[in-house]
Amino acid sequence: MKYGFSRRVKYLKSSAVRDILKVINQGDIISFAGGLPDEGLFPVEAVDQAFHKAVTSNAKALQYGETEGVKELREALVERMAKKGMKRDAEDVLITSGSQQAIDLFSRVMFNKGDIILTENPTYLAALQVFESYETKVVAVDSDDDGMVLADLEKKINRLKPKCIYVVPTYSNPTGKVWSLERRKKLLELADKYHVVIFEDDPYGELQFDKEDAPPSIASMDDNGLVLYTSTFSKTVVPAMRIGWIVGPHQIIRIMAQAKQATDLHTNSISQHALVHLLNDFDLDGHIEKIRKTYYERMLVMKDLLATAKVEGLEYIVPKGGMFFWVTLPEHFNTTKLLKKAVKNGVAFVPGSPFYVSKPDKNTLRMNFTNSTPELIKEGMGRLIQVLEETEEEQLISSK
Amino acid sequence: MKYGFSRRVKYLKSSAVRDILKVINQGDIISFAGGLPDEGLFPVEAVDQAFHKAVTSNAKALQYGETEGVKELREALVERMAKKGMKRDAEDVLITSGSQQAIDLFSRVMFNKGDIILTENPTYLAALQVFESYETKVVAVDSDDDGMVLADLEKKINRLKPKCIYVVPTYSNPTGKVWSLERRKKLLELADKYHVVIFEDDPYGELQFDKEDAPPSIASMDDNGLVLYTSTFSKTVVPAMRIGWIVGPHQIIRIMAQAKQATDLHTNSISQHALVHLLNDFDLDGHIEKIRKTYYERMLVMKDLLATAKVEGLEYIVPKGGMFFWVTLPEHFNTTKLLKKAVKNGVAFVPGSPFYVSKPDKNTLRMNFTNSTPELIKEGMGRLIQVLEETEEEQLISSK
Repeated sequence: MKYGFSRRVKYLKSSAVRDILKVINQGDIISFAGGLPDEGLFPVEAVDQAFHKAVTSNAKALQYGETEGVKELREALVERMAKKGMKRDAEDVLITSGSQQAIDLFSRVMFNKGDIILTENPTYLAALQVFESYETKVVAVDSDDDGMVLADLEKKINRLKPKCIYVVPTYSNPTGKVWSLERRKKLLELADKYHVVIFEDDPYGELQFDKEDAPPSIASMDDNGLVLYTSTFSKTVVPAMRIGWIVGPHQIIRIMAQAKQATDLHTNSISQHALVHLLNDFDLDGHIEKIRKTYYERMLVMKDLLATAKVEGLEYIVPKGGMFFWVTLPEHFNTTKLLKKAVKNGVAFVPGSPFYVSKPDKNTLRMNFTNSTPELIKEGMGRLIQVLEETEEEQLISSK
Repeated sequence: MKYGFSRRVKYLKSSAVRDILKVINQGDIISFAGGLPDEGLFPVEAVDQAFHKAVTSNAKALQYGETEGVKELREALVERMAKKGMKRDAEDVLITSGSQQAIDLFSRVMFNKGDIILTENPTYLAALQVFESYETKVVAVDSDDDGMVLADLEKKINRLKPKCIYVVPTYSNPTGKVWSLERRKKLLELADKYHVVIFEDDPYGELQFDKEDAPPSIASMDDNGLVLYTSTFSKTVVPAMRIGWIVGPHQIIRIMAQAKQATDLHTNSISQHALVHLLNDFDLDGHIEKIRKTYYERMLVMKDLLATAKVEGLEYIVPKGGMFFWVTLPEHFNTTKLLKKAVKNGVAFVPGSPFYVSKPDKNTLRMNFTNSTPELIKEGMGRLIQVLEETEEEQLISSK
C-alpha cells in the first residue's frame, strides 16, 4: 500500500549524529562523535536508592500524574535555580522528557509556517531540525568569540521581525563557546526593545571548568518575561531518566503544558520522584564537581594532542566547560569525506556541516572529550592525527 | 509582554477529564471520573526489583538510547503479540512514552490541515484533541452495539476520502463496547478496498472479563499493511512508567521514529529496561488475571447498584472488559450541570459531552469502576443515585 504523509515529514531527517552513533557502536572504533557523558561517572548507587524509594514509598507515585510535573520536583528546581540567581515560581516550571521536548513543545505552541527564528551559526542541530519541522525559517546571526555580533543581531531583528532568538550561550553545542556578560545583557536589551522572546538552551551550564568564571544565565537577568530557559539532568545525573525542565512566562508555560497533555500526558513520574529523592539524599553538587574535574582533565589531554597535529592552519577553541571541541581545518578538508577515512582508521567525530543554518563550513568538526578515558583519547587522537596528516600531505602533493 | 502563539494553540484545550481530576483529588469525594487503574493492585515489589536490575545491571542502560526503543523490549513485545496472532518484526515496533505519544507521532507524520479522520462517536477524547491540534477534520461514523455501521462507513469513505479511520474496538473508552468479529473483518475489507489506514487504539484489550470471549485485534487479521496498532503497559503494570508501543508498516514506523527523535530523542530507557526484566522475572499474565477478576467484581457491584436507580429510561451498557460504564440518562438531564450537584454530594463522574465529535448527547456520562473498592463503589453509587433521583423528581414536578 502507498501511504500519504504530512508535508512536515520532508523536514524530518534522521539526525546525522544519531545515525553515526548507530554505526560506530559496532566494532573497535574510538568515538568522539556522540554528545555522551561518561557512564563510568554515573552515580549508580544513588540512582538505585532513589528509584527504590520512588517505587516503594507511595503507590500514588506509580499512578497517572500531573502534566506539569511532580510538584516536589518543580519546587526543588525552583530552589536550585534561586541559588543561581533565577527567582521563579514552581507554577512557571514544566517538567519535560529531556530538554529536547522543551524545544519541541515551545515550537509547537509558538511557531506558524514562515515564522523567523534567529540563531547562532553553527548551533545545536536537533534544535534546527525541530524548528524546520514546524516550517519556520531559521536565520543565522553573525557570531564571534563573545556571542552574537550585536550590530548584525539588531539589523536582523529590525528587518526580519523574528518570533524568537534561540541561543546556547554557555559552553555551546557544537562550538564550546561562552557568551560574555556584556553580550548577554545587550541581547536582553534588544529583545526587550523589539519584543522578541529569547529561548536560552542550557544543558551544559553546570559543567564549567572554572567555578569562579561561571557566567550568569540570561534568564537570571530577565525581569520582563522575555526568556524561556531550559536545562536537563541528562549530563549531571543520567540521560536515560529523560528529565529536563523549562521555566518562563506563565502564559507560555501553561499553554505548553496543554500541548504536552496532548503529546504524552506527562513525563515518566517514577523518574521524577526518583530525582526528588536523589536531590534530597545525594550530594549532587559534590558529584557535579567530580564530573567537572574529570572532564577538565580529559579536555586538557585532547587539547595537548590537538596541538601536536602537523596540519597548517588547524584551529580550535579551548572550551571553558561543556563537552566539545570545535575544530576548523584548512579549507581543502571536507570533514564528511574525512569521517570515512577516520572510521577506517578506528576513530570517529561529527562533521560540522549539519550544525550550520545554511552554507556550512565543510572543513569543521566536533569532538566530544567526555565519553572517553584519557587512554582512549590518546589512542583515538593518534589515529585521528594520522588521518589528518595523511590528508594534508596528499593535498600538498596534489597541489604541487 | 504580549506573546504571539501559533495557530494550532486554539485547538489545545486542557482536557475536561484532567481538569476535573485536579479538583476532585481534594477533599472527601469518591471519584468515578478518572480512567485510573487501582493503585492497590500495582505489582510494587516486582516493579522495584525490575528497576533495581535496570539501574544496576549495566551502565549502558543509563546512557542515551536508541530512538526506536530498547531492542530487548521490542523483541519481548513481538513475542507477546505473536501469542495473540500478530506476527510482526521488532523493526516495525516503536516504543513510545505511553500510547498517547503514539497517537501524536502518527498524527504528526500523517496529517495535513483539512485531512479527514473517521471515528466512532463518542470516542477517546484525548485522541480527538490531538487530531484537532493538527487542524484535521474529524467526522463521526454511525455506530451500534457491534461497532461502526458499515453502510455509513462505506458511504463516508467514498464521499470524504479520509486519510485514516481511528477506532478503539475493544472495551472502548468511553463506552466499553466491543466490536464484533464480523465488523472487524469488514472494516479491514473496506480499508483495503479504498486504501485507507486504520489506527487501532487498544489500551484495554488485555482487561477482558471472559477470556473465551476475547476478540482478535484488527491488526492480527491485517496482511496488507493497513493497520497501525498501539497499546500500553499503563493499565497492566503501572501508568507512571509511561511505556507504550506502536506497531505497523515499516515505512510509517520509520518516519514516526524520525519524528520522535526531534520530539524527545527516545523514551525513558530505565523504564524500558525495567520492563524487560519484569517480563522475564514476573508472571505478568498471572498478574493481569488478578486485575481482570478484581475489575470484573467491581463492575458487577456498580452494575447491580445502577439497576436500582429509580430513573425512568436510564440505560447503560454492561462492559465485557475495560474500565468504564457508559450511562445514558433521560433527555432532560444535562450531565455537566449534574456533575456540580454530584460533587456537592461527594461523588464525581465525567460528563459524556467532551467524548463526542460534534453535537454531544448531553444526557450521557462515563463512570470508572476500577479505581474504587467495592465499599467505595457502594458509598459513591448511593450518593450518585440520590442526586439522580432528586433531579428526576424535580423534573417530574416542574413538568406537571
